[in-house]
Order: sequence, then C-alpha cells, then structure tokens
Amino acid sequence: MSRPYVDFEAGVRKQATIPDGALSLGLAGTAPGLVLERNGSVIVVLPGPPAELQRLWARALETDPVRRVLSRAQPPELRQLRFFGASESVVAKALADAGGDGEGVEATICARDFEIHVDLVVAPGAESRADELSAGLVGPIERYLFSRDDRPVEEMVLDLCRERGLALVTAESCTGGMVAERLSSVPGSSDVFLGGVVAYADEIKVRRLGVPAEVLERHGAVSAETAAAMATGARERLGAEVAVAVTGIAGPGGGSAEKPVGLVYLHVEGPGGGRSVDFVFPGDRQSIRRRAAATALHLVRRLLQQHRDEAV
Amino acid sequence: MSRPYVDFEAGVRKQATIPDGALSLGLAGTAPGLVLERNGSVIVVLPGPPAELQRLWARALETDPVRRVLSRAQPPELRQLRFFGASESVVAKALADAGGDGEGVEATICARDFEIHVDLVVAPGAESRADELSAGLVGPIERYLFSRDDRPVEEMVLDLCRERGLALVTAESCTGGMVAERLSSVPGSSDVFLGGVVAYADEIKVRRLGVPAEVLERHGAVSAETAAAMATGARERLGAEVAVAVTGIAGPGGGSAEKPVGLVYLHVEGPGGGRSVDFVFPGDRQSIRRRAAATALHLVRRLLQQHRDEAV
Repeated sequence: MSRPYVDFEAGVRKQATIPDGALSLGLAGTAPGLVLERNGSVIVVLPGPPAELQRLWARALETDPVRRVLSRAQPPELRQLRFFGASESVVAKALADAGGDGEGVEATICARDFEIHVDLVVAPGAESRADELSAGLVGPIERYLFSRDDRPVEEMVLDLCRERGLALVTAESCTGGMVAERLSSVPGSSDVFLGGVVAYADEIKVRRLGVPAEVLERHGAVSAETAAAMATGARERLGAEVAVAVTGIAGPGGGSAEKPVGLVYLHVEGPGGGRSVDFVFPGDRQSIRRRAAATALHLVRRLLQQHRDEAV
Repeated sequence: MSRPYVDFEAGVRKQATIPDGALSLGLAGTAPGLVLERNGSVIVVLPGPPAELQRLWARALETDPVRRVLSRAQPPELRQLRFFGASESVVAKALADAGGDGEGVEATICARDFEIHVDLVVAPGAESRADELSAGLVGPIERYLFSRDDRPVEEMVLDLCRERGLALVTAESCTGGMVAERLSSVPGSSDVFLGGVVAYADEIKVRRLGVPAEVLERHGAVSAETAAAMATGARERLGAEVAVAVTGIAGPGGGSAEKPVGLVYLHVEGPGGGRSVDFVFPGDRQSIRRRAAATALHLVRRLLQQHRDEAV
C-alpha cells in the first residue's frame, strides 16, 4: 500500500477528519474544505481541482473568519483592456512606450484564446496615473481594443444580437462545431443563438446549406466563395438574421502549395451586408481550429459593432 | 520597469542568449529551448506553454546528449486500462481489493473527461504480478472497461465506423456542437464523420431534423422521444448510417421539478437498431454539457462494439 488512495478506508477517513477548532465547508464530491483561525491568521483549506475549489470557495466567503478578513481589506481597482488581432509583444511594447507599470499601477499581460488581456491593478490614489497609462497604451493600438470588461467574446456577440433583436446561426466546416459550442456555452444563449450546421462533408454543404455544386467545383470547399455561400445558406435555411461561416484546412493532411494547412476563410452575413476575411493560421490542428473559432466570433462582433456605431 | 516583458528589447535579448556550451533547440514562436551537459548530467530547458514545450521536446530527443541518456535507460512497460461509467472511488477500491500496487507495479488512477484511467507502470521482471493485478482489478468492473490503449473515445468511435464502412452524423441540442467538435478534432475524421446539426432552437429541430411538432408538444424538447426523433432525422437528412442525438437541460435556468437541470436524453441509431439512455448529470452548465458529450461518444462506441461482437 504505497499510495494513500489505494487504501480506500484510510483515504476516506483522512478526508473526513476535521482539525480542532476548524470550520467545515462541507464537501465537493468527496473533497473537503476547511476554514481555520490561528494566532490571528485565517487559513482556508480547499481541494485542488478547479471545479471543487470553486464550489467550496463560495462557501468559504460566507464564513465569519473570512468575512472579517475581507472587511479589513481595501480592494484595489481592476481595469481590463482586451485586444484581438495584435500580438502579445506589440501590446507589451505599447505598454512600455506608455511608461510601463509602477507608481501604484500594476500591469499584467496575458495571452488567452488568441486575445491579449491587459489587467491594470490600481492602488488607491493612483487613478490618474492609471488613466494616463491606459490612454497611452491604447492610443497606438486602439483598433485592436475590443473590450474594457471581462465578458468573453461569445457573450459580447450574443449581447449585441440581443440588443438589436437579431437571431444568430453558424455554418462550420473545419471548426467542426467549435463556434456553436462557444456560443451555446453562455447561459441563456438560446434566445439569440438558434443553432447551426456542421458541414464537414461537401455533400452536407450542398444539401443542407445550399452551397451551389458549381461553387465547390470551381473554387473548392476551402475558398472565400464557399464561405460566403455557407453563410448565405445558413441564414436562409436556418431562418436567422446573422450567420457566420468557417471553412479551412486544419491539417495535418490536406494542404497544398496553393492552399496550405492553416488556410481558413471566414464570412459573416447580417441584415446590412457581409464581411469576409482569410488567414493562414500557424500551429497544429487544434490550434488552427481554435484560432479560427475565435476569429469567427470576433468577425461577428466587428460586423455588429460597426452596425451599432453607424446607428449612433 | 518592474517586469522584464515590459522592456521589449531586454526581454528579447534574454530569450536570445545561449549559455556557454549549450545546444540551441531553436525557437517555438519566440520561446527558446536548450540542451546543456554539465558534470555528467544533461539539462533540458524548455518553455512552459504546452504547445511550445511539445514542439521543442521533439527536437531535444534528437540531440546527442539526450539520446545518450535514453540509450542507458530501460523503459518500464506501460499498461493502460480505461473505464467509463464507474466512479474513481469504485475503481480505486477494485485496485485495492486486487492487492494494490507495489512489488514492481506502480498504479496511478486519474479521472479525465468523466473516464477513469488506470496506468500500470511495470518494472522489468514484474510482468506476472502486473497480469495478476490487472486481472483482479478488471474482474469485478469489467463492464466499465472500454479500452486498453490511449486512443480517445472519439478516435475509437471513428475507427469502429471506418472498420464497418459506416458514416456518422450528430444532432445536438444542449451540447451545442461539442460532440461534433470532438469527432472533428481527430485528424482524418472527415472520411467517416460527415457533420451534424446543432438544433438549439425547437424550430431547427422541426425544420432541419424533421422532429414532428407533435413529439415536441406532447413530450417536450427534452425527452427520450425527441432524442430518438433527432437521431432518426439526422440519419435520414444528413445521409449517414449512424447518428447520435443529445437533448437536455444544461442550466442554470430551465429546470423544473419534473425535468431538473442536468437531465439529458441521448439516443444513437445505427443500421441494426438504436439505444437510448438518460441521466441527471451533476455539476455546472459546462460540466453537464461535457459529461453529456462524453456519454454520447461512449453510447456510439457501445452500439458499434455490440455489433462487432455479434458479428464475431
């Protein structure tokens, strides 16, 4: 018996033991949590797996010892800047050129899902320094700035559709359902997001999205023309105002000199017209697919924000 | 300038510096890798992000110092047992009842994507101890064992379809494209996986999958009858031999006393008939969706393995 979990009873007993004076947070599954106060310090014991940690953390916040700690703390202000389309080093250079962090403003730069997230943690009194830094940072790269809050882009897209009373559908080839999956991951998305077609085989592109066979023959399944036809077909056949389509070569096979692995065509179509983009994305199959899905969501966002700006 | 990455030039210079006597592995993006030999030890320096690490690790394996280390090592045998449908503690108990690890066999149990993976690392000479342990462990929980290799279930499903010349499609409501996404994540999946319909709105279930409006009215969108009709519709309309359908309540809203959050109906239909299951899955929205997607893939696997067994 070299590992504790192999010994079933001992493992469970260990998990059920509560130190003297500790407050039990109950269980997340079989994982326990505790709050313990010793010599004026408050210790919170939580399980490691994120889902279990998050469940018990909420309960920890409700205990008196943790409440007392929090009531003494002055939370620093958090400002968020989110960019899409600029690289991490371009954003880092803009931050440096703007004076860098320090003097009460702490900056972190984080690349996530092909977006660049900048968090400014502002100490009390450093607000005007933060205003300056933030303005200086955003200035030269403003066209990449898409958000000042922490809503994921799929939620922004759904909110933009909801504001304008537009229904949204997807038509996906190489991303295989990833765009739909991200949209439907948002609670309450069903009032705006109707669904989509994963048209992996060409026959489904023709029969279920109405892509003309001539378009596929002349331009190929991976082409701007096919992407546009997929979006048009999805809008009409699924009965929505906005449709976004993705077709590309995720690899590792299927590439050619003319159409290399990573080549992706995207098209969004709304009531006021459409937008097309294409890229050759780097990385492996899953990275290309994830990048294409993120780009699809940002493409819808840009179309809808443009419309909103025009209306204003 | 409190953080190195804010200083653009210094950061790049640091990444471009090679210690004396080190072997450069080149770059993954801007991240460098090195191999260094000192006092008979070989040090491999790799970037942290998994994709970058994996790219440079392949190159590290080709360097002479790493080759020399590997040529001296005797790789232990790895045996894999994968279970679905049993909890981690049930598998841990079966392992303990079978005698537990030790005596040249190291066992690790890992819950991943709602599967339980047991790895046995077998030292040279401990093969018969491993045979015994493995037989004793599997015996009482054999019906949950689905694999003795490390193929993900989506790859097993595609292989089973390929062996039998069957095309596969999906019809998803609450999982919103997650099943299609997992199937299309496998390179080369397009010869078997044709695509699917994400039928999030009821109208798409009716118009694109041919679910009878009466079925929706009488039984509701979340019902065994709707799941079966979705699978039948997907098979016929998308032109495949096998279709799997998922409909459920992912929450956090939309639950009722009769149909609580987490309730999911799944149906798979193949040339030899169908199979239905339903569950009330625990967890949050994303956890319910991920569990439903995993269950859908295992449901297809079971149907196809049953057919294969019958044919043998």
